[in-house]
Amino acid sequence: MALDEAPLSPTPRTTVVRGRQRAQAERTALLDVFRSARLCHLGVLVGNVPRVLPTVYGVDPDGPDRAGTLYLHGSVAARSMVEAPDQDICVTVTVVDGLVLARSAFHHSMNYRSAVVVGRPRRVEDPEERTRALDAIVDQVVPGRSAHLRGHTRKELAATSVLALSLYEASVKARAGGPIDDDADIMAGGVWAGVVPVHETMGGVVRAKDVEPDLAVPDHVLALCRA
Amino acid sequence: MALDEAPLSPTPRTTVVRGRQRAQAERTALLDVFRSARLCHLGVLVGNVPRVLPTVYGVDPDGPDRAGTLYLHGSVAARSMVEAPDQDICVTVTVVDGLVLARSAFHHSMNYRSAVVVGRPRRVEDPEERTRALDAIVDQVVPGRSAHLRGHTRKELAATSVLALSLYEASVKARAGGPIDDDADIMAGGVWAGVVPVHETMGGVVRAKDVEPDLAVPDHVLALCRA
Repeated sequence: MALDEAPLSPTPRTTVVRGRQRAQAERTALLDVFRSARLCHLGVLVGNVPRVLPTVYGVDPDGPDRAGTLYLHGSVAARSMVEAPDQDICVTVTVVDGLVLARSAFHHSMNYRSAVVVGRPRRVEDPEERTRALDAIVDQVVPGRSAHLRGHTRKELAATSVLALSLYEASVKARAGGPIDDDADIMAGGVWAGVVPVHETMGGVVRAKDVEPDLAVPDHVLALCRA
Repeated sequence: MALDEAPLSPTPRTTVVRGRQRAQAERTALLDVFRSARLCHLGVLVGNVPRVLPTVYGVDPDGPDRAGTLYLHGSVAARSMVEAPDQDICVTVTVVDGLVLARSAFHHSMNYRSAVVVGRPRRVEDPEERTRALDAIVDQVVPGRSAHLRGHTRKELAATSVLALSLYEASVKARAGGPIDDDADIMAGGVWAGVVPVHETMGGVVRAKDVEPDLAVPDHVLALCRA
């Protein structure tokens, strides 16, 4: 698989440049990656070993942290949530757009968009910000969902840790386009090469058994299946 | 979003139990998760901060490491590949099967399968094992592809680091089924709840511009689009 051409492999280019003033285009790309996914992978040190955990997230581009706020949440009992505010963490979101098939294994790659954010998270204590953060997390997974739900109860809020991470220390990487093969392999011919686009689709909605049978599937759910 | 019911949020249940003898069922589930994905997220310490990087992988259930071998690769110049063999790393693979919409934000969740492997990687030096590993990585992304490609050149191999990680220290988590709501919310009614299945699909293959126009799309590519 691709090395020079495969930015999905860990390379020095992934290195986050701390404090660098990002151009507006890069910020737009960052927010686009976060908008395009539903899941991030959180890296946190647990007993000196990096642990990588899938979790949901919310984004507030106008949040109170520098360059905007990324929100994470978890159980107050979760070790990673307890330990996170005392250390730098890393949040990575990756969207795969296609498989890039080259003539050689070496030049295989993926078309993708990936965002990496690092920093010391802030524990969110303000009740209004906590509510906004939890709603943002719901709406990141199902846009428009939170408006249809009752408010969070005191018990639920007490069981929930909310962390905020500045979007300032971040990097975006992307690849698009076809394979880039060695001239010798192109001349030799005989091997098909190209891109296989990858799509995420939703459909075949399953109503919960205990939902009233006459309750229509709401528009915000139908919209997911049309996307 | 779900806390008690959302294992995708970081919780102590994610904690890897080192050295625990896993049952055969758990091993089957582990291999199933690795077979179902194309991308993992690698956690590696870079300057005391956990860095989470998306990358491809290969699996050899009968590999030389205890409980089988997970292979990673990257440029010899990549900082994370250089530093990885001297520290414990974490590799996480996550497959999202559906969005779980409950009546309350708190009980929202995802149906998913996730595998976490930790350990000290071994740098693969044996030429035959390196070739097998690189072929396994190509075939994990596009099953059957490596048989259609020329061998790796000496120059390509010299530019490539291959790491092996034992599948022994691993954990698997999964959620399936509908939302689990509070009785009071079910009684109150009026909010649609259920599961929105998520699928990955491939199609609309784009031939590389420099491929012979009479070269048919091979079966191993067509198979991706049928899956």
